[in-house]
Amino acid sequence: MTKEAIASAYKALQTTICTDLEKLDGTSTFSSDHWERAEGGGGLTRVLKDGDLLEKGGVAFSAVHGEVSPAMKSQLHLEGETFFATGISIVLHPHNPHVPIIHMNVRYFELDNGTYWFGGGIDLTPHYVIPVQAHLFHARLKTICDKYDTGFYAKHKPWADTYFHIPHRNESRGIGGIFFDHLSENNTSLTKESLFAYCSELASSFVSIYTEQAELGRTKTIEPHHIAWRNLRRGRYVEFNLVHDRGTKFGLFSGGRTESILMSLPPMAQWEYQYAVQEGSEEAETLKWLKGEMRDE
Amino acid sequence: MTKEAIASAYKALQTTICTDLEKLDGTSTFSSDHWERAEGGGGLTRVLKDGDLLEKGGVAFSAVHGEVSPAMKSQLHLEGETFFATGISIVLHPHNPHVPIIHMNVRYFELDNGTYWFGGGIDLTPHYVIPVQAHLFHARLKTICDKYDTGFYAKHKPWADTYFHIPHRNESRGIGGIFFDHLSENNTSLTKESLFAYCSELASSFVSIYTEQAELGRTKTIEPHHIAWRNLRRGRYVEFNLVHDRGTKFGLFSGGRTESILMSLPPMAQWEYQYAVQEGSEEAETLKWLKGEMRDE
Repeated sequence: MTKEAIASAYKALQTTICTDLEKLDGTSTFSSDHWERAEGGGGLTRVLKDGDLLEKGGVAFSAVHGEVSPAMKSQLHLEGETFFATGISIVLHPHNPHVPIIHMNVRYFELDNGTYWFGGGIDLTPHYVIPVQAHLFHARLKTICDKYDTGFYAKHKPWADTYFHIPHRNESRGIGGIFFDHLSENNTSLTKESLFAYCSELASSFVSIYTEQAELGRTKTIEPHHIAWRNLRRGRYVEFNLVHDRGTKFGLFSGGRTESILMSLPPMAQWEYQYAVQEGSEEAETLKWLKGEMRDE
Repeated sequence: MTKEAIASAYKALQTTICTDLEKLDGTSTFSSDHWERAEGGGGLTRVLKDGDLLEKGGVAFSAVHGEVSPAMKSQLHLEGETFFATGISIVLHPHNPHVPIIHMNVRYFELDNGTYWFGGGIDLTPHYVIPVQAHLFHARLKTICDKYDTGFYAKHKPWADTYFHIPHRNESRGIGGIFFDHLSENNTSLTKESLFAYCSELASSFVSIYTEQAELGRTKTIEPHHIAWRNLRRGRYVEFNLVHDRGTKFGLFSGGRTESILMSLPPMAQWEYQYAVQEGSEEAETLKWLKGEMRDE
């Protein structure tokens, strides 16, 4: 399985995902923005805005290569002189506060010394946590994991819980999902081909998983307090991505393409000093969940 | 000059500044939020919202003390066992896009081994850069600097230009101002008392400097494109504070009081993929300025 084959498959998946998301959205379509990287490679960033379901959505593909910089050597502990990296990254911000924000990423990294690894994951950020919907989401991911390695879910779910945590708020970003990195034939039971199949299936299941979640909230009535809460949760999403997310920080500090990296930010967000939720409200229930005070799994 | 005297003077300045800002605003008043820190000390965070001039404003005072943590030793290179830190920090976000965002901070730090230093600065972030107003702002700061050391302005202005830069956007956050840190009798011509007087005068001149800037824009007509641009510039302000600002990052990672640290964030902000300004527009002129393509000083 060559790096070219992997990149080509991911690029084809980007097209399918965008076509399917346009159908789900119903009114808006993705723009296409080709870009090149001076040091080697490039990408295609596709963005949809002001749709019926989605206020802002981004589906980015990239395949870049070049020399392993001193920053990469020190920060990523890489032993090799040249690298190749390809992946798809998605973030969707819906209008309706009853529909969750979702993030998906699959990536492949290879060095000239023969080292390679796969990484990725899917996680959900509902503005309002509804346990039965959260279970449904996790169950879908477990089904995919189990097809490849019955030990994956038990490892990749806690990895997401640890990763998508906002320490300065003592809150999780959402309900998690799965997250994994540095997977290869050396540290899993799978061949390179099967690891690629795992990542591909995650990506190709993405729209179906999100459709299920979106349809459950899409027709619910929106009241002003729902919008206020959505905007506040979007603020937390910004805080996580800019303060903690390793991919975002590495991208920004290593001269990555800013517009593609920050495509993940919501169309708008709000902050209010000491925002207080009403006791017993839907917002208070969600906050308890995010603070780990009522996890039931 | 004891640390208690410095803290007490800063706390009194906070009161005066809030009273004067309420007069400038005209309709809203500051809330008062006392807080204590488990490890020692505390603060008073004062916030105003939905005023006539100010959409959100925060004036925070704190005086904290405790053991020098391993994180402080390694990140701040501190030699000492206990520390004391006090300061005032201000950020104002006006409604009117023709009125600038402003930030002011004065701080004092002392170790048990006798080491101390002063730090601080004022910088302006106009949504629309108007050179004559920028000159006025810089001139006011120069006048204050010159009273203490005629070499200060030439050092502290470039320090702000370097500090308030957003590398991943290749833009400055605003028009700068002055910034300084680690000033003591060992690296300046001034006594401890004079350094304190310099910081105090900056703080006590703050409202007058901001009033001058605010009155120049406050009555200007607001059109929808001004609001859109203001919201985008607020997004950049969020990016600077969360990705680059050393004080914010140190505060969040060292267990500081999150609500007081993030008081600096705007009430709301927007992001748009590849936001394009119209050639020849007011927005394009400001962007050129922020990208250093038309500095005239």
